[in-house]
Amino acid sequence: MSQALGSRSWIIPDGYIPPLSSGSLESHESICVLNAGDEPAELELTVYFEDREPLAGIVETVPGRRTRHIRTAGLASGGERIPAGVPYAVTVASSVPVVVQYSRLDSTQPELALMSVMAHPLERS
Amino acid sequence: MSQALGSRSWIIPDGYIPPLSSGSLESHESICVLNAGDEPAELELTVYFEDREPLAGIVETVPGRRTRHIRTAGLASGGERIPAGVPYAVTVASSVPVVVQYSRLDSTQPELALMSVMAHPLERS
Amino acid sequence: MSQALGSRSWIIPDGYIPPLSSGSLESHESICVLNAGDEPAELELTVYFEDREPLAGIVETVPGRRTRHIRTAGLASGGERIPAGVPYAVTVASSVPVVVQYSRLDSTQPELALMSVMAHPLERS
Amino acid sequence: MSQALGSRSWIIPDGYIPPLSSGSLESHESICVLNAGDEPAELELTVYFEDREPLAGIVETVPGRRTRHIRTAGLASGGERIPAGVPYAVTVASSVPVVVQYSRLDSTQPELALMSVMAHPLERS
Repeated sequence: MSQALGSRSWIIPDGYIPPLSSGSLESHESICVLNAGDEPAELELTVYFEDREPLAGIVETVPGRRTRHIRTAGLASGGERIPAGVPYAVTVASSVPVVVQYSRLDSTQPELALMSVMAHPLERS
Repeated sequence: MSQALGSRSWIIPDGYIPPLSSGSLESHESICVLNAGDEPAELELTVYFEDREPLAGIVETVPGRRTRHIRTAGLASGGERIPAGVPYAVTVASSVPVVVQYSRLDSTQPELALMSVMAHPLERS
Repeated sequence: MSQALGSRSWIIPDGYIPPLSSGSLESHESICVLNAGDEPAELELTVYFEDREPLAGIVETVPGRRTRHIRTAGLASGGERIPAGVPYAVTVASSVPVVVQYSRLDSTQPELALMSVMAHPLERS
Repeated sequence: MSQALGSRSWIIPDGYIPPLSSGSLESHESICVLNAGDEPAELELTVYFEDREPLAGIVETVPGRRTRHIRTAGLASGGERIPAGVPYAVTVASSVPVVVQYSRLDSTQPELALMSVMAHPLERS
């Protein structure tokens, strides 16, 4: 039996899906989640924008003893997705403790660029 | 009704506005703020330099349930701005809890580079 | 006599060994550990995948008053290694307090990209 | 009168001075310190290596209400410096609370790469 590790609430203020790519690698962002426990982690994501109400109710699952590197371009709630080229922020609420890291690969100009941050946890376990 | 998340005080030691750009993307920095609560966040930024007194009194607002990705080149207090090409640090004080991330895109040489950090919070909520 | 600093448990959700390199620098990841105390740090790493059971029992040592920047491509348990080109996460458990940072150099496309995060600590000392 | 902010002890496990540069920007690392208080911050840095005893006794000062972005290639203790091309770690002890961020610019291959992390604090104020 494995131990659940981390926090149930994580925040990423700097989200942005680069609208352009070049070369062999596609621009993308990943929300990388580790669920080290045995129970599945039910995630609920809320996306905040600069000029409109939040997009709530995005649901994802990470099975027990698994990681998932979730591409943000695939996230949807009621058919609505995060538009490319728009600044946003995202919160991740989980049913069990998890750890969340956010990474972006930008290949807008040829030759890629990378950035990554540990998301900000609200409580620690 | 939404819940305010994060801290009222954040610190970014490594600020630098790259003076040059190349290609289609302009070098810039963003101070990315999420205000997940309902009240507007009144921000007061103070900029610290290596060789002169701080530039205080820079004021910005982030409405409730919104994010803002604030370009540092546009920050001003009494007509004074942050010069490009100069190392600085910045503190962000907020009237309500927020979460702050700092990111820089540098396209001084062709082909961009990215970096990002979560700002350092002084208290957690 | 030196003081042990940091935490005994660290988590890195976004692991990925880039399968391709170009130019003079090889794509790689490093798990960078500082053991500031006098006792050797016995590390046990567990690697989590998206689609199979974890790879446990990877053992490494960091001598006292030393750092090690451990390449992930060299990690092995029972002859099994972390495959390149596959998303994974990794936990680091240490016999004494240490501090862990994770960095990746990606030279898939010519001209390298870098990213780095402080790993997420479970307890602080 | 200004308030001292942050921690008196910070740790950076992944230090590395890139030995090569290309283009108009020189490869370098910076240890970026904000001293928001009125008292000068007397810093003592200790550098840890993979294969030899630590280099202790590196001393730097950050005046009150100032930031300094300290290039690691210029750090010295008893005439000894950090060699380029060698993995190291560094701890920063300060006489007053400060906040420390670490950034690296690598232009080994033409077109630069950037990475940055907030250093790991041992205590918070």
